[in-house]
Amino acid sequence: MHGGAGTILKAQMNSEKESLYTNALKEAVLVGEAILLNDGYAVDAVEAVVKQLEDNPLFNAGKGSVFTHEGKNEMDASIMDGRTLKAGAVSSVMHIRNPVTLARAVMEHTEHVFLSGSGAVDFARSMGLKLEPDEYFFVQYRYDQLKKARESDTIVLDHTAIKDIDEKKFGTVGAVALDVYGNLAAATSTGGMTNKKHGRIGDSPIIGAGTYANNNTCAISCTGHGEFFIRSVVAYDISCLMEYKGLSLKAACDYVVKDKLVKLGGEGGLIAIDKEGNIQMPYNTEGMYRASKTNNEDLVIGIY
Amino acid sequence: MHGGAGTILKAQMNSEKESLYTNALKEAVLVGEAILLNDGYAVDAVEAVVKQLEDNPLFNAGKGSVFTHEGKNEMDASIMDGRTLKAGAVSSVMHIRNPVTLARAVMEHTEHVFLSGSGAVDFARSMGLKLEPDEYFFVQYRYDQLKKARESDTIVLDHTAIKDIDEKKFGTVGAVALDVYGNLAAATSTGGMTNKKHGRIGDSPIIGAGTYANNNTCAISCTGHGEFFIRSVVAYDISCLMEYKGLSLKAACDYVVKDKLVKLGGEGGLIAIDKEGNIQMPYNTEGMYRASKTNNEDLVIGIY
Repeated sequence: MHGGAGTILKAQMNSEKESLYTNALKEAVLVGEAILLNDGYAVDAVEAVVKQLEDNPLFNAGKGSVFTHEGKNEMDASIMDGRTLKAGAVSSVMHIRNPVTLARAVMEHTEHVFLSGSGAVDFARSMGLKLEPDEYFFVQYRYDQLKKARESDTIVLDHTAIKDIDEKKFGTVGAVALDVYGNLAAATSTGGMTNKKHGRIGDSPIIGAGTYANNNTCAISCTGHGEFFIRSVVAYDISCLMEYKGLSLKAACDYVVKDKLVKLGGEGGLIAIDKEGNIQMPYNTEGMYRASKTNNEDLVIGIY
Repeated sequence: MHGGAGTILKAQMNSEKESLYTNALKEAVLVGEAILLNDGYAVDAVEAVVKQLEDNPLFNAGKGSVFTHEGKNEMDASIMDGRTLKAGAVSSVMHIRNPVTLARAVMEHTEHVFLSGSGAVDFARSMGLKLEPDEYFFVQYRYDQLKKARESDTIVLDHTAIKDIDEKKFGTVGAVALDVYGNLAAATSTGGMTNKKHGRIGDSPIIGAGTYANNNTCAISCTGHGEFFIRSVVAYDISCLMEYKGLSLKAACDYVVKDKLVKLGGEGGLIAIDKEGNIQMPYNTEGMYRASKTNNEDLVIGIY
């Protein structure tokens, strides 16, 4: 699982902040692990992990989402089941407590893959999903980010690049999993960019770009400068490099994240798992909040 | 170029209708050919061809777009330049005369790839693009389709499947081109599905699914049951099969459209051109409105 690439600059990290993030990542991994150890499905595990991260205001997804230029919280999410190649995605949804759960409802209860805006929220209502008032999503330091971004008229990928804000990261959360039946699944959720305008959609809700899963190859969830990830069709590219070119998961991930994306100027990273349970978490930024656990490897938690 | 897969059932076609479509396809091809013969760019040619089709009420894009459940015309479009791998896309836009031109403006005048809804329309206004009132998009037989679809509560992919409507097709238009400089480009535009709800987004605005172009491989524009095209990342899949597996354009197109998509249940087709100027226009439906022209081949126009 990941909680976004970029991250707090190492020089500005302190042990208190670090343990907040580390604990949050650990709790989320345990939620997914419990499902998988209990012979649960990969798709259930990735949804549960992403929900946990969406409910945590530390991450830019669900509660903790950044504000658009108009002061709203518009969120995007997607999920894909590698067993069926079914997928669900939502973009520009407001008031949805768990966008990943809405994406899953699209996958399982509609003939569609991708719903957007108020139509998607109407669908959430019709499914009885949990909606929250504006106050639920209000996090003071996110609002302060918006005010600062508005003043400088900068579009900010999560808490990035403004001098007096001490963090820089691409705010997205995501999870990938392999279950005991050999099923792969992936899910991604984001609160988007601070001060974004014009209904901008990034890679998180785009199947093939931000999220992809296929039992024959791998499951992928991305985080980064979404425009570059869309143009590079990053998640499906990893899958194709394995399926058509015979690359290992590691070779495919390294080539895409550390070579192709770098040449194009695309900052970010991704998490990946293949059908043998190999895990890769490459990034070309200073860091990426990430954690992993397998049945024969200890918990791994990393930021830098 | 294509004007949608599915098409009027052959049994119900008459020579008058056929010549309407044939003439429209021919006119659009000539627009693109004139640009390319004049040493113009591929990206200019595909935009001009798609504009021409958007302005023609025969096709489900621009003027002639179908109505959503709420009686609105919501349109999607995308464009990609294979030279730079830059791309632009818009979804759920109303009142835009030429969504493909708005997609191009997103590509060339923003840092983004994908804008949606009223935000995208605001951006169009700020760029001085042509907006039209509701009446411009009102086409009586499209409205009759909506009324019939509402009565049966069917979501209709363009004019499909309702017994007393004599047409069945996936309404999308698209163009691909190779210019004298070796640049490939692709563009796709659609008015979506009659009676669609919940802000459904299909494959047309999704880079990698409905549209893709890369000077190293090919340019692709798709038309069909969008959900299957998204899950299969169809346009980029063709490119990957060529780049990573060494398939010819024909072999890649046949495998994806006539094997992979058929197995998944995905109806539709696509148009494709590679860097050598080879053209493929495969479909797994009864027909697809299509036309092509090269510097050493005569005009080809086909429906079935």
